[in-house]
Amino acid sequence: MGDVGIIMGSDSDFGIMEEAAKTLQSFGVSYEVKVSSAHRTLERTLAWVRAFEAQDGSVIIAGAGMAAHLPGVIAGATTLPVIGVPISSGALQGVDALYAIVQMPSGVPVATVAINGARNAALLAVQILAVGNPELREKLTAYRAKMAAGIEAKDKAVQSLKINF
Amino acid sequence: MGDVGIIMGSDSDFGIMEEAAKTLQSFGVSYEVKVSSAHRTLERTLAWVRAFEAQDGSVIIAGAGMAAHLPGVIAGATTLPVIGVPISSGALQGVDALYAIVQMPSGVPVATVAINGARNAALLAVQILAVGNPELREKLTAYRAKMAAGIEAKDKAVQSLKINF
Amino acid sequence: MGDVGIIMGSDSDFGIMEEAAKTLQSFGVSYEVKVSSAHRTLERTLAWVRAFEAQDGSVIIAGAGMAAHLPGVIAGATTLPVIGVPISSGALQGVDALYAIVQMPSGVPVATVAINGARNAALLAVQILAVGNPELREKLTAYRAKMAAGIEAKDKAVQSLKINF
Amino acid sequence: MGDVGIIMGSDSDFGIMEEAAKTLQSFGVSYEVKVSSAHRTLERTLAWVRAFEAQDGSVIIAGAGMAAHLPGVIAGATTLPVIGVPISSGALQGVDALYAIVQMPSGVPVATVAINGARNAALLAVQILAVGNPELREKLTAYRAKMAAGIEAKDKAVQSLKINF
Amino acid sequence: MGDVGIIMGSDSDFGIMEEAAKTLQSFGVSYEVKVSSAHRTLERTLAWVRAFEAQDGSVIIAGAGMAAHLPGVIAGATTLPVIGVPISSGALQGVDALYAIVQMPSGVPVATVAINGARNAALLAVQILAVGNPELREKLTAYRAKMAAGIEAKDKAVQSLKINF
Amino acid sequence: MGDVGIIMGSDSDFGIMEEAAKTLQSFGVSYEVKVSSAHRTLERTLAWVRAFEAQDGSVIIAGAGMAAHLPGVIAGATTLPVIGVPISSGALQGVDALYAIVQMPSGVPVATVAINGARNAALLAVQILAVGNPELREKLTAYRAKMAAGIEAKDKAVQSLKINF
Amino acid sequence: MGDVGIIMGSDSDFGIMEEAAKTLQSFGVSYEVKVSSAHRTLERTLAWVRAFEAQDGSVIIAGAGMAAHLPGVIAGATTLPVIGVPISSGALQGVDALYAIVQMPSGVPVATVAINGARNAALLAVQILAVGNPELREKLTAYRAKMAAGIEAKDKAVQSLKINF
Amino acid sequence: MGDVGIIMGSDSDFGIMEEAAKTLQSFGVSYEVKVSSAHRTLERTLAWVRAFEAQDGSVIIAGAGMAAHLPGVIAGATTLPVIGVPISSGALQGVDALYAIVQMPSGVPVATVAINGARNAALLAVQILAVGNPELREKLTAYRAKMAAGIEAKDKAVQSLKINF
Repeated sequence: MGDVGIIMGSDSDFGIMEEAAKTLQSFGVSYEVKVSSAHRTLERTLAWVRAFEAQDGSVIIAGAGMAAHLPGVIAGATTLPVIGVPISSGALQGVDALYAIVQMPSGVPVATVAINGARNAALLAVQILAVGNPELREKLTAYRAKMAAGIEAKDKAVQSLKINF
Repeated sequence: MGDVGIIMGSDSDFGIMEEAAKTLQSFGVSYEVKVSSAHRTLERTLAWVRAFEAQDGSVIIAGAGMAAHLPGVIAGATTLPVIGVPISSGALQGVDALYAIVQMPSGVPVATVAINGARNAALLAVQILAVGNPELREKLTAYRAKMAAGIEAKDKAVQSLKINF
Repeated sequence: MGDVGIIMGSDSDFGIMEEAAKTLQSFGVSYEVKVSSAHRTLERTLAWVRAFEAQDGSVIIAGAGMAAHLPGVIAGATTLPVIGVPISSGALQGVDALYAIVQMPSGVPVATVAINGARNAALLAVQILAVGNPELREKLTAYRAKMAAGIEAKDKAVQSLKINF
Repeated sequence: MGDVGIIMGSDSDFGIMEEAAKTLQSFGVSYEVKVSSAHRTLERTLAWVRAFEAQDGSVIIAGAGMAAHLPGVIAGATTLPVIGVPISSGALQGVDALYAIVQMPSGVPVATVAINGARNAALLAVQILAVGNPELREKLTAYRAKMAAGIEAKDKAVQSLKINF
Repeated sequence: MGDVGIIMGSDSDFGIMEEAAKTLQSFGVSYEVKVSSAHRTLERTLAWVRAFEAQDGSVIIAGAGMAAHLPGVIAGATTLPVIGVPISSGALQGVDALYAIVQMPSGVPVATVAINGARNAALLAVQILAVGNPELREKLTAYRAKMAAGIEAKDKAVQSLKINF
Repeated sequence: MGDVGIIMGSDSDFGIMEEAAKTLQSFGVSYEVKVSSAHRTLERTLAWVRAFEAQDGSVIIAGAGMAAHLPGVIAGATTLPVIGVPISSGALQGVDALYAIVQMPSGVPVATVAINGARNAALLAVQILAVGNPELREKLTAYRAKMAAGIEAKDKAVQSLKINF
Repeated sequence: MGDVGIIMGSDSDFGIMEEAAKTLQSFGVSYEVKVSSAHRTLERTLAWVRAFEAQDGSVIIAGAGMAAHLPGVIAGATTLPVIGVPISSGALQGVDALYAIVQMPSGVPVATVAINGARNAALLAVQILAVGNPELREKLTAYRAKMAAGIEAKDKAVQSLKINF
Repeated sequence: MGDVGIIMGSDSDFGIMEEAAKTLQSFGVSYEVKVSSAHRTLERTLAWVRAFEAQDGSVIIAGAGMAAHLPGVIAGATTLPVIGVPISSGALQGVDALYAIVQMPSGVPVATVAINGARNAALLAVQILAVGNPELREKLTAYRAKMAAGIEAKDKAVQSLKINF
């Protein structure tokens, strides 16, 4: 098992959630991916949470769509930080998942990111792990610098485009 | 234990949910009221579901507000019909609870009623119990007739009001 | 006629509603499919409800889109349990249908499922019929077990995928 | 019976709908007020529509809240123009009623006005009756002129208020 | 000029609004189509309204998208019944147009139909013209009967489909 | 007449809109307040716009609620910058006014501020007038500095509060 | 640098924002295009604002999607008029950007236009620059006249289309 | 300075945000409260972030209402975990703040909790600090146990209430 557990309610969420895995990998953070449901395999989900805790996992990322209960149910079953990723699916296009994840009642928080925001969920996990880990924080600083450089490069590209109107 | 289990995530929901209890009582249907949370006392909630099933309970009514996971989590833990009551609380005034209850993913349905619709949840439970129970169905027919008579009486009252413009 | 009546306001809803029929069939539950509107063929709709009741039908599933009145109108005309399926169509993509079905006034409930949730409507109908029918309940338990096994299989598939990053 | 029928699903809607009656009265248009429900007293509602048609009624105003089916059901039962008034009640504050009234499927229109817009419903009824009735149209023109004069008077009042800053 | 004026703010609305013209034509109701904007050609729009009134036009259908002001501005400029068609365009997909048309302030109603509901707008215009016109009312009755027959035919088609599961 | 015209559709909007007048006054910017409607007194509104232009007015602030057409109609009648203030009123609490003001079609912009944001509308007007007016810009800089000082003072007040937990 | 600064948070916004550049160009208004983020390159963004002010820039147009902070952050850093363009992207299709731009707190306005309304943002900038610039105002008058002529031409086209039903 | 920084854009947010301070205090976690705005005192806000980082602060909780930019701007200025609290204020009652906080673009996450969820923000901060801090984790476990016991007590209270129907 890894430092971060990535769990999703259905394998159809994998297209979105794999971005979290890739991002963690790029930071050298170990992780595990799990497919298990809050409704269809609740006991298995709870067992996975207990195993993840037992093996000193640190942060859980849970993604789900529609009436997205997985992040909240896991948050109720552990005191590890749980990051929720609302996934856009079905007619309401993710607003249902956003409300079902972010509006947790008092006592059991879920750290919610944007709809389909799996990459940000991973970055948030890295930021949490970097509390008291200067090496990881430096990687984050480098990531931010690279991101800023990317914008500067795109700025230049757009400046030159402008000439062509 | 009774034929219907009424469960809510917080005692603050009781002001809404007691209407379900009163309605069942008026039909002579036995029920039990339970306060237990999907997040804060999940194991206790699941134990209650198993006990309710073991003692031949038939229908569960679950009320919850905000990121309302209780009805869906119970629905995943039993094959009894589960009726969900979204409760209006907090800034989103029940839309969050409605989406978190009604938008259940494929495989695990929750029979959702209107926001704060505890009375209708009880009536739906009675209608379910009345399948194959002619005596109970007659009571429902009488209830409908009384309701219709009430509207006719109000219609007359409004007709007379009209004279006073 | 069958134990479950599946009615929809327009044949354009059939693409969604046939999932209910298929699901009932897989449980060996008899059903009838009907196309009739609350606005365009109201008398015919009411006649069908009376016939369905007369022939000992047990549960009605009604699907409709936009200002979806069919489930509510049928619920007012019978004391059988009525399950409403909001169908996504038109510019509001099913929110209109959801509100028009779930927000029933006090006295006449409709058991509402997710937008386009025809399969869950059928499962809910089976769960209602299974009250006091141990054989049907066993089939539901088997269905859930199969569903759980499917998730476990998908979990394994995703675990192996992970290797390929 | 009058030229305009004002019908509402519950006497609790009367506080809003009486504005329609008062407005019609101020134009000297005859009307009748009715309380009858699309769900609880459907047959009685349909009988009232038939009687209203038989006695040469011209326009129907129907007000309802929540899953507001009354205007649409009446529109399906008559070819007279039906004006729908969504009434704000319950947690969704009238958005549910608006969608349930205005989003009628093709073939059966309801002329929808603003949430709680009973006065505008009456004015629309007068505008419909004024088609081919020059006397009534003159009254409408006078009403508009009076309304405009009221705004001019308020404009003056506000101008003088401004001095007092 | 005809009995019904169909006006839209942009020729891009014609794809939706032509359904109104076709429907009126099928009832033998004369009409005129106009493209004119509440913002870009306001004076021209007002001149058209005055000309339509002068030539004894009876009902106006106005379609517009986004911040849809055309129906309301026309309603303020005439006492003829004005039917508003919210058109789905842009990011908000017609909710903006719906609110901008239906939520008219007290004194100036717009008879609003569903988003993109141009056919229903035309049917409503015919229903208004049929007040005191028995011949037109008969055509409406025939239209409804045909519509009902269409549903019965589709019902049969679906019944036979069912066999093929 | 002043540099800024403040216009509202109804005197009931004055409670919100007077904040704009007070703010302009505090900057020493001349203004005029007008009550005139896009629906009820359209010609008078257009005449006021022409007079405002003729007397070298520079910026117009228009406030309106519900289906708020006033800002857009004025924007269509002038090439002066028009600032729109959506006013919260009625069941939809200002979302209707926001959409009806901000979603203007291509060609005729309205500079929209927050719901009930009359003060910001005035500040935006001052910012527009300050283009090429260094004296007015200095006043804006001073206003911002005072605002920042206010926050620093409140920060200190809260710091001391913290001691009292 | 130009009179108008066009800034966007990401080069992916360029497809929408280039319409602003094209429109300014058609009015002969000088402009500069910049890609810089409120989150990823904040200091660089603030430096650009200071440089734009130092070189007598007059109006800023800022476009951003999702939690669109760029326009508001820039508005807090300058007293020049800032025009915000909410860009439709992600699951919420621009409603998030609209709310994040228009709902600015008291003291710091952003002149918000429609979702994806880059052309209107440019026209608003021209209208602001035209305050006290009669030549530019004439160009706006000509633009409006051309727009009106376009509608008249389309009106004629649609009239002739009508014949072909 | 403390382990957790609590920052809000206005002292009017303190009524909500003090709950975070109280909760941290109950866990013995040191914190600092700050009032500073993303728009009105941006430089001061950024200076505070740098000072907080320099003094080894670990987690930031940022609360803001309406177009709530404070959490996102801070998240862009630090790689510490930032928890955002959307605050309900103004006409949109917190939906604007929720969208403006949670929908952060890729690269800069904000850990968002429920509208007005200041207590959960503090609990999430404690959960983050408890990663690798067994003593703090034990306190969290005790907190959860106490919460569960509270629900059991309320359950008993409601059971006895039931007798009194």
